[in-house]
Amino acid sequence: MIEQIQDAAGRLADYLEPTPLVPSHVLSRPESAVHLKLESMQPTGAFKVRPALNGMLCHLDQARQKGVVTSSSGNFAQAVAWAAKTLGVDAQIVMMHSASAFKRERTRALGGTVVLCGDTFQDRWDTTFRIQRESGRVLLHPYDSAETIAGDVTIGLELLDQIEQDFCVAVPISGGGLISGIATALKARRPGCRVIGVQPAANGSMALSLQRGERVTVSPRPSLADALVVASPGERTFAISRDLLDAVVLVEESELAESVRFLASEQKIVAEPGGAAGVAALLAGKLDTRGLPIVCVISGGNLLPATLAEILNGVR
Amino acid sequence: MIEQIQDAAGRLADYLEPTPLVPSHVLSRPESAVHLKLESMQPTGAFKVRPALNGMLCHLDQARQKGVVTSSSGNFAQAVAWAAKTLGVDAQIVMMHSASAFKRERTRALGGTVVLCGDTFQDRWDTTFRIQRESGRVLLHPYDSAETIAGDVTIGLELLDQIEQDFCVAVPISGGGLISGIATALKARRPGCRVIGVQPAANGSMALSLQRGERVTVSPRPSLADALVVASPGERTFAISRDLLDAVVLVEESELAESVRFLASEQKIVAEPGGAAGVAALLAGKLDTRGLPIVCVISGGNLLPATLAEILNGVR
Repeated sequence: MIEQIQDAAGRLADYLEPTPLVPSHVLSRPESAVHLKLESMQPTGAFKVRPALNGMLCHLDQARQKGVVTSSSGNFAQAVAWAAKTLGVDAQIVMMHSASAFKRERTRALGGTVVLCGDTFQDRWDTTFRIQRESGRVLLHPYDSAETIAGDVTIGLELLDQIEQDFCVAVPISGGGLISGIATALKARRPGCRVIGVQPAANGSMALSLQRGERVTVSPRPSLADALVVASPGERTFAISRDLLDAVVLVEESELAESVRFLASEQKIVAEPGGAAGVAALLAGKLDTRGLPIVCVISGGNLLPATLAEILNGVR
Repeated sequence: MIEQIQDAAGRLADYLEPTPLVPSHVLSRPESAVHLKLESMQPTGAFKVRPALNGMLCHLDQARQKGVVTSSSGNFAQAVAWAAKTLGVDAQIVMMHSASAFKRERTRALGGTVVLCGDTFQDRWDTTFRIQRESGRVLLHPYDSAETIAGDVTIGLELLDQIEQDFCVAVPISGGGLISGIATALKARRPGCRVIGVQPAANGSMALSLQRGERVTVSPRPSLADALVVASPGERTFAISRDLLDAVVLVEESELAESVRFLASEQKIVAEPGGAAGVAALLAGKLDTRGLPIVCVISGGNLLPATLAEILNGVR
């Protein structure tokens, strides 16, 4: 893994600038500074362009010849469409019929071809693997491949450049790719850093898996954090998380809503509920930072304007 | 003026970090990159902490002994309260009775003493000057003093550090302090830069003044851009603007609302309508950039959550 780190950073440097790490005056306290890593400022509004680009660049000839395929109805779908357009690659993105029209539209607008399937994760993966077998397309995994995790590693590398001392980073967890990448970079290069994962209580499969010492599958439940709805951690991401994470904490739906409201009204940024999970844990006093400065990774900012309006009005 | 530039930068460096300049993927075009200067990330959510701090630091002994006084119901009020708290200074802020409860509350929460007066700019200034005469407090002018403009100059200096080539900057205008500071820095250090001011059509006193060649007073009209409601440019700011600006353009209320909506839904930042004026002009095709890369100064992000919700829902 370690040797792939610097490769990925080099690969992405031609396409993406480092995202800003901004000090948060409204979250900082005299005893602990808080910084926000704004992945919401990436093209397509989420960190997912990193793994999408890295996966494609690692297999560029095949991707250009045969195309790519992935399984996602969310931020990875848009990121793959964007990366494909950037690199001149054809992309098929498998989504459930139940995926919102908004998400389909956004993905299509970026040039991706949306393939609809049944309404379970199993259906989505079956369809994805079938397409991959039949077409020879490069399969891009949203969280559980070495290339994907190596793409996410670049966030950790940027943080190491942007903040000089040991710090505690709070990272939203869905399948676990993002936190696996960040933890891999930080624990290799600056082991005094703490890495804390945050999941919605509605979908706490990583937390439960780490507690039990094995991958657990749960029934996905609806959550305001639609980017963090998942049945189980990946194989790779579970193994990395078991070895490297310092803690995983759970946040309630109301805490997610409050963090989105707080970030918009006080910090002047738009975070989606999943992207604000680290801040939700911080505001709820759930981060054991051991006195270190804090970084919250704002992993994305994609939510419907109408949903943001509801959150601002306290309806959610 | 020029000799005050570097002094102000040195003075503020202990209190404020440079604000981020972020590339905007959603606004950039192949022929012209667009960057956003996020003054909305400052303490109190607007650039005004720069002039507030600089004004206080230039007269710190007197300010600590006698206090300070200013006239503002908006972002400068909160900035002065914040700077006063930071420096251990007593601050009185004169506001009209009609100032919103929200603004009064925010200013008080930061430790400022709010003094209410009648509902015209004349009343507000009369009260401010009276307090200043009677108390010996340092008067901090929201836009038309050398210290205020020198504080705003620091934004221009940061831009010169953050972007290497000539660029075109779009800057919201109210009294004209912000654009005077930025233009002073840019035209002194990199005269190939273009500086374009943006005013709401509802309050176009600087545009009209420059057109007529003399300071014009207009009747302030209500605008979604409540930070840009002003009767006339300052004496100093008019003189600097006449000498240094390349253009001033006007934007409609609907264009201001659209830019706030666009920045929240696509760029994932919260800008107040006045703070988004540069982006409004850009989106409306009103910036003659002469092919230069574009910087829009997002001067502030302070708007009521309910107002932002209305804008997101298309009610405004």
